[in-house]
Amino acid sequence: MAGETVITVVGNLTADPELRFTSSGAAVASFTVASTPRTFDRNTGEWKDGEALFLRCSLWRQAAENMAESLTRGARVIVQGRLKQRSFETKEGEKRTVIELDVDEIGPSLRYATAKVQKVSRSDGGGGGYGSSGGGGNSGGRQQAPADDPWSSAPPAGGSGGGYSDEPPF
Amino acid sequence: MAGETVITVVGNLTADPELRFTSSGAAVASFTVASTPRTFDRNTGEWKDGEALFLRCSLWRQAAENMAESLTRGARVIVQGRLKQRSFETKEGEKRTVIELDVDEIGPSLRYATAKVQKVSRSDGGGGGYGSSGGGGNSGGRQQAPADDPWSSAPPAGGSGGGYSDEPPF
Amino acid sequence: MAGETVITVVGNLTADPELRFTSSGAAVASFTVASTPRTFDRNTGEWKDGEALFLRCSLWRQAAENMAESLTRGARVIVQGRLKQRSFETKEGEKRTVIELDVDEIGPSLRYATAKVQKVSRSDGGGGGYGSSGGGGNSGGRQQAPADDPWSSAPPAGGSGGGYSDEPPF
Amino acid sequence: MAGETVITVVGNLTADPELRFTSSGAAVASFTVASTPRTFDRNTGEWKDGEALFLRCSLWRQAAENMAESLTRGARVIVQGRLKQRSFETKEGEKRTVIELDVDEIGPSLRYATAKVQKVSRSDGGGGGYGSSGGGGNSGGRQQAPADDPWSSAPPAGGSGGGYSDEPPF
Repeated sequence: MAGETVITVVGNLTADPELRFTSSGAAVASFTVASTPRTFDRNTGEWKDGEALFLRCSLWRQAAENMAESLTRGARVIVQGRLKQRSFETKEGEKRTVIELDVDEIGPSLRYATAKVQKVSRSDGGGGGYGSSGGGGNSGGRQQAPADDPWSSAPPAGGSGGGYSDEPPF
Repeated sequence: MAGETVITVVGNLTADPELRFTSSGAAVASFTVASTPRTFDRNTGEWKDGEALFLRCSLWRQAAENMAESLTRGARVIVQGRLKQRSFETKEGEKRTVIELDVDEIGPSLRYATAKVQKVSRSDGGGGGYGSSGGGGNSGGRQQAPADDPWSSAPPAGGSGGGYSDEPPF
Repeated sequence: MAGETVITVVGNLTADPELRFTSSGAAVASFTVASTPRTFDRNTGEWKDGEALFLRCSLWRQAAENMAESLTRGARVIVQGRLKQRSFETKEGEKRTVIELDVDEIGPSLRYATAKVQKVSRSDGGGGGYGSSGGGGNSGGRQQAPADDPWSSAPPAGGSGGGYSDEPPF
Repeated sequence: MAGETVITVVGNLTADPELRFTSSGAAVASFTVASTPRTFDRNTGEWKDGEALFLRCSLWRQAAENMAESLTRGARVIVQGRLKQRSFETKEGEKRTVIELDVDEIGPSLRYATAKVQKVSRSDGGGGGYGSSGGGGNSGGRQQAPADDPWSSAPPAGGSGGGYSDEPPF
C-alpha cells in the first residue's frame, strides 16, 4: 500500500478494548483513544487542557488478542495506523461518514507506567523480532519459527547473523 | 516548542537501555532503535528486509526509569520524539554532527507480545492519565495527586468530571 | 500547544478553496483534500486505487489568502496540521461530530508540477524565512520587518546574521 | 515498502537544489532543509529560535527536475520522505554513517508566499492527479495519458468517472 495517511496518536483508552472474531476466526479489537492537547496560558502561566480528540480504532489478528490481554480503560497508549474513512447508513437511511484509524502498532506508554513484556509464541507466526516492522493489514509479520523465549532471557530471533551483539555503526 | 520535527519510529532495541543520572538527580535513558523496512519483491513474491535505520535516542526523567525497568535488548518498541542535531568534537579535534531522537513517548509494541502494565505512583507526578498527552521535555506531566491504583482496578485520575464513564460523543 | 495530533496528508483539492473573512477581518480558507492510497495487486502485477480519504481542512490568516491565490481544484498538495474534533447540531437537533484538520502548512506538490514562488510582503508579518518553522494557530510567524525581495533575488530575511552563506555543518 | 520511517519536515532550503543525472538519465536533486524550532520563553514572554536541524535530502526523477525549476535558496518548504541511513568511508578510511531523507513529496510552503502552479505534461507520466498519492521511489505515478491542461483550466485527469464534480461524502 502506498500513499496512505499514516498517523501516530498518543492518548488514553476510553474503555476496555472490545475483542471480536470474524467468522473465519480472525480477531479484531475495537477501541477509542482520547487525545487531549494542552495549551500554555501565558496569562496564568499554567497549562490547560484543550478539547479532546476521540479517535475510533481497530486492530487485527494476533495484535488484537495481545492488546485485549494487556490494556484496559484509562491506559495511556501510543498508536500508529492509517486514517480511513468509512461510510455507512443509519437506520433512518441517512448516509454518514466517519474517520477511523486502522492500527498497525499499539503499545502502552511508559511515561507514567512500567510494563512487564512477554513475547507471544504462537504457531501462526508469533516470531517477529528484528526487522519485522510495519507490514499493515496484509501481513502477519515475517514467517519464522515460533520463539519460545521471552525477550528477557534470550536475544530475538531474526537479524542477519549475530543479532545485536555488534554495536550500531556509530 | 513549535516547529519541531516530530517523528515516530517502530523498531527493536539494539541493546538494553543505559540509565544514568545527572548530578541533579534527573534520570536519562540512552538507547538505539533499529528499524528495518521490508520490500515486496515482485519477482519472487516475497518480502525482503531492507537496510536498517539505527536511531540513537534519549529519554528523560520518570519515563527513563520506567523504560529501564520494562524493556530489554530486542524488544520491539514504538517511539515518538523530536529529531535533534547534536554537534561534537572528536578526540582528533574533528567536528561531527549526529542526528538523534529526543523521545517523548515510548512503549513496547503489542504486535508480537503482551504486557502487564503497572501505573507508577510517585510523589513527583506519577499521575498522568486522561488528557496528559504530549508535553515534551519541559513537562513532567500534569500536576496532580499521585494515584495509587493501577489502571485495572480504578479509573484514572484527571479528566473533567467523571473520567471515562461517559461514552465518547459518537 | 503540546500533545496535539499532528499529521501530514498528501492528496488533491476536491474544489477551489473557499475564502471567508471573520468579522475582525481574519481570513480563513476551507477546503477538502482527497487522499487516495494505492495497493499493489500481486495477481495482476498492477497498482490499484484504494478508497479515498476526504479530509476537511481549515487554514487561517495570511496563509489562507496565499493559498486562495495559488491553488485550485485538482491541485496535488502536501498539508500538515492538527487533527481536531468538532461537534455540532443538525437542523433536526441531532448531535454530530466530525474530524477535521487545522492546517499549519500547505504547499503544492512538485511531483507533477512546477511552481513559480513569490514571497509575500505584507505589513502584518510577511517576513518568515529561515527559522520560522511551525508555529501553530497561535502564531502569525516571527515578527520581523517585511521583506520586499522575492527569494530568487536575495537571501531571506531573518536568521542570525549571515543567512545561508555558511555551509550546514557536515 | 512497509515499515519505513516516514517523516515530514518544514524548513528552509540552505542553498539552491543541485540537480544531477545518473548515467541512465534519471534526475536526482540534492538539497538540505534547515528546520528551526521555536521555544516560548515564559520569563520574557517571547519566542526564541532553538537549534536548527539540518537534514540532507534527495529527490528523484521528474519531481527532481520540477523542484530544481521551482525552488531556490531560502525557500520555505514542506518535505515528506523516508529516513535513511547511509554509510560511507572517508578519504582517511574512516567509516561514517549519516541519516538522510529520501523525499517522496516536496512543495513550497504558502505560509509566507504565493505560487503559480503549472502542471507538467510529459510523455513519461506527467499525469498524476486524483489518486496518485504516495508511491515512493519505485513509482513514477500512475500510468495514464499525458494531460496537457494545467489545473487552472480543466479538471485533473484520473478519478473514477466525473472527477471532483461531486461533493465529498459529508
